[in-house]
Amino acid sequence: MANNYTDIPDRSAHWKLKAYKIIFEADTFWGKFFDVGLLIAIFFSVLAVILETVVAIRSEYGRVFLILEITFTIIFLIEYIMRIIVVEKPLTYIKSFFGIVDLISILPSIIGFFLVGAHSFMIVRSLRLLRVFRIFKLTHYLGEASHLSRALIASKNKIIIFMGTVVILVSILGAVMYLVEPPESGFTNIPKGIYWAIVTLTTVGYGDIAPITPLGQSIASFVMILGYGIIAVPTGIVTSEMNQQRIKETNKPCPNCGIKQHLEEARYCHFCGEEMT
Amino acid sequence: MANNYTDIPDRSAHWKLKAYKIIFEADTFWGKFFDVGLLIAIFFSVLAVILETVVAIRSEYGRVFLILEITFTIIFLIEYIMRIIVVEKPLTYIKSFFGIVDLISILPSIIGFFLVGAHSFMIVRSLRLLRVFRIFKLTHYLGEASHLSRALIASKNKIIIFMGTVVILVSILGAVMYLVEPPESGFTNIPKGIYWAIVTLTTVGYGDIAPITPLGQSIASFVMILGYGIIAVPTGIVTSEMNQQRIKETNKPCPNCGIKQHLEEARYCHFCGEEMT
Amino acid sequence: MANNYTDIPDRSAHWKLKAYKIIFEADTFWGKFFDVGLLIAIFFSVLAVILETVVAIRSEYGRVFLILEITFTIIFLIEYIMRIIVVEKPLTYIKSFFGIVDLISILPSIIGFFLVGAHSFMIVRSLRLLRVFRIFKLTHYLGEASHLSRALIASKNKIIIFMGTVVILVSILGAVMYLVEPPESGFTNIPKGIYWAIVTLTTVGYGDIAPITPLGQSIASFVMILGYGIIAVPTGIVTSEMNQQRIKETNKPCPNCGIKQHLEEARYCHFCGEEMT
Amino acid sequence: MANNYTDIPDRSAHWKLKAYKIIFEADTFWGKFFDVGLLIAIFFSVLAVILETVVAIRSEYGRVFLILEITFTIIFLIEYIMRIIVVEKPLTYIKSFFGIVDLISILPSIIGFFLVGAHSFMIVRSLRLLRVFRIFKLTHYLGEASHLSRALIASKNKIIIFMGTVVILVSILGAVMYLVEPPESGFTNIPKGIYWAIVTLTTVGYGDIAPITPLGQSIASFVMILGYGIIAVPTGIVTSEMNQQRIKETNKPCPNCGIKQHLEEARYCHFCGEEMT
Repeated sequence: MANNYTDIPDRSAHWKLKAYKIIFEADTFWGKFFDVGLLIAIFFSVLAVILETVVAIRSEYGRVFLILEITFTIIFLIEYIMRIIVVEKPLTYIKSFFGIVDLISILPSIIGFFLVGAHSFMIVRSLRLLRVFRIFKLTHYLGEASHLSRALIASKNKIIIFMGTVVILVSILGAVMYLVEPPESGFTNIPKGIYWAIVTLTTVGYGDIAPITPLGQSIASFVMILGYGIIAVPTGIVTSEMNQQRIKETNKPCPNCGIKQHLEEARYCHFCGEEMT
Repeated sequence: MANNYTDIPDRSAHWKLKAYKIIFEADTFWGKFFDVGLLIAIFFSVLAVILETVVAIRSEYGRVFLILEITFTIIFLIEYIMRIIVVEKPLTYIKSFFGIVDLISILPSIIGFFLVGAHSFMIVRSLRLLRVFRIFKLTHYLGEASHLSRALIASKNKIIIFMGTVVILVSILGAVMYLVEPPESGFTNIPKGIYWAIVTLTTVGYGDIAPITPLGQSIASFVMILGYGIIAVPTGIVTSEMNQQRIKETNKPCPNCGIKQHLEEARYCHFCGEEMT
Repeated sequence: MANNYTDIPDRSAHWKLKAYKIIFEADTFWGKFFDVGLLIAIFFSVLAVILETVVAIRSEYGRVFLILEITFTIIFLIEYIMRIIVVEKPLTYIKSFFGIVDLISILPSIIGFFLVGAHSFMIVRSLRLLRVFRIFKLTHYLGEASHLSRALIASKNKIIIFMGTVVILVSILGAVMYLVEPPESGFTNIPKGIYWAIVTLTTVGYGDIAPITPLGQSIASFVMILGYGIIAVPTGIVTSEMNQQRIKETNKPCPNCGIKQHLEEARYCHFCGEEMT
Repeated sequence: MANNYTDIPDRSAHWKLKAYKIIFEADTFWGKFFDVGLLIAIFFSVLAVILETVVAIRSEYGRVFLILEITFTIIFLIEYIMRIIVVEKPLTYIKSFFGIVDLISILPSIIGFFLVGAHSFMIVRSLRLLRVFRIFKLTHYLGEASHLSRALIASKNKIIIFMGTVVILVSILGAVMYLVEPPESGFTNIPKGIYWAIVTLTTVGYGDIAPITPLGQSIASFVMILGYGIIAVPTGIVTSEMNQQRIKETNKPCPNCGIKQHLEEARYCHFCGEEMT
């Protein structure tokens, strides 16, 4: 995000610099204006995509959705071209995560105008929603987001172990229920049994597949009480990690020795005695 | 809640002061009596509203409900008028949150006597329940309530980030399921898909909409296991924040240096050695 | 549990003392034997009550259940009489919680032999299960139980506030859904709406009542995401309290000043400098 | 895992040592190659077992599954024989947990070739999945796994108390609902009632059995709100224990005095001043 244009005093660069500050940064008035405007455009374009799938609404306002779609596509197309022109290294931007997201948010509509009824582009279009994340990078929420993601990354190994255990557990439970329950109750094969085990262990409990034999219901009871304990594990992992992250963050490092874990109110480093600033 | 009447020695003010103490405070016997009586009236008036909607009960005791309704409306009307008379700045009270709640709890009934069958006032009448909160402000529970709400306010940013992520996630999941599942399984449009994704991710799982294709069930399984991890995040945020709030609250600041994080039993400040009072 | 018989040296008291130790304590071999035997009798008598309600089993083994019932009633009758004889203050025992539980576990059966078909005694008989708790008082588990219950008692105020908020919330939600949804979806009155709100907010989600209108489903989505945050609150309260309880318990009090919050490995009191034993 | 072959310099032992290192350890290239290859074989053999139960897939690819089954059985048979030959004490391996798992993963298939249609061996075959755990013992994940399991073992007593309370609670609730609800709602006997209570208290909520009477729904509402508090208890136990385990693990003991609770960054023991290594 560091500005690399300051050394180039010619005119076109000056115009580019201003545009860069508006499009990529949010410190100036027009920068904020651009970000908020884009956010609104993203929100309504996504809403249009969602509402268009409701038959009653589409048959009534089909024309409106077409106009909206064209308008939003043009807006996002202009934005995409502007970003490529304004940025110093266009290829780096195009290849980056946000570059791809920006391309995906216009491409399906453009192809859609030629290939009428291209239904499966709906998935690609829904990726437009990912653009919402972009606005976050400009706010002070980033610190919080990195706090959350750091807690998740730090507990990565524990989560893998936990997920592995869950996968093994539901596979065995699915196989057991397939053997115990008659096909009438919905356990027609092991994958259905595994699906049921996941639905039950996560306490979702649709009820589309449910045991009907006393033995099946006994095993299900055991699975549910087990699920009680199991749901506590990820919560324990995340909470414990967050407490740890909090301890690490609420304390500034010592200016002399760089040590971090001081009490929040500490005035002197507990390690080298240096005064904390 | 500070009493502003003490300087005015004339008679009417004296009567007003007494009434003020009874209606707005709960330290005296009559103050407590008034609060408990009002609480009972609120409870039974709300109960009457709720039970009146049950056809079997209404057809049997319709007359009783009408009498109860008139009685409660008169009680709350008198209370409302009393509060306006007794309070020093009536307009401030009328415009305050509790003033509006008090007005809302009588207005629908009064209008209802003129407009028979005004069904939608039921919502407004159910707001009467909010008056229950008023009794809390008089008790020592307030400290606890502010403890809870302060923990929630302190984690506001994290909760916004979390909610934003959930909204984006369910939108994409809803779109994907709409594409994957046939309309027979209930995924007739993206909003239905989003509704299903929320029902599943929060582990509610009604089962009114449930995937029937193997691919849909595989995606659903993934969503549920994801929901496992996601449900851990708000728990982690709130728990971690409550631990923090507890640390901040259980320790008084040192009278000499103002430092706060002492052990609960500390008699001397661990930082400057000042005796703690 | 302190033995009050040691000062009485006569013969009957000696026999009573021995019986007391067997029946009320679990330190001797026969004491443990008695406790384990009683636990097995409790387990199988409860199992008999439960299985007797299954029509297929009762029609097959009806005779066996009658014999079992008589046997268990006689066993518990003898135990109850023995406890009254052996204990120093029989009235105190009879009036105590466990005395009442012991009486309730024999009374229904005895009355049942006279009043054939007394169906509602099944509830009373199921109270026999409470006797299972008695065995716990003899084990080292007691410390853990008191740890758990102390954490719950300490967070009592917070839980009351929380429950009050939930009750108000589900009442308003129930009323709103009653107004929004047509009777066909199951919301025939406000109590049904409240029942639905509780089922949804606790993430149970039976699906017997579920919104069918877009507006109703939108409100339901909001309720579920709200439930996400709400379920985090009691978890936060209990976890935070347990952490606190752990801090208080893992540290012995100082033998000199009685202060408790030392680090687990502390050799000297951090408050008065007394050596910890 | 300590290598006991180094002292035996003869040829056969040398060959055995190399094979031992490949099969039982994962430090060398071929050791890793063997482990990854085995993991892939385990994964696909389990997947084959699961997919074989889907009628549509079996009828199409029945021949492929038979060939896969024979291939995987031969691979695991060779692996099993190799392990017995290569290990120093074959009997200890055969009797060990992993020895039994290895035997179980080949035995059903071998028996299956003779006893066509031996359906119930599917359970035994699904135990093959347990072999997945073996790969974990070679990775650095072990430390995390022992971290998790140590937290669970340390809270064993609390979990037993909690489970006992839940069992007693659901038994009483099941009996109450059996008495309150008519058989039409699915509460045909107490075991069904207990099953319903577990389904509700764990917030799974299938909806296959749900109360239909106002009294039954009121009790159910109470059970669900109770379940709110109850689900917080295991989470509290596990989280609190994990916090404790973290404190114990992140701090090495002092080499001089053996004290453990140092801050993560401590260079000198806070108790005796010894330098930490």
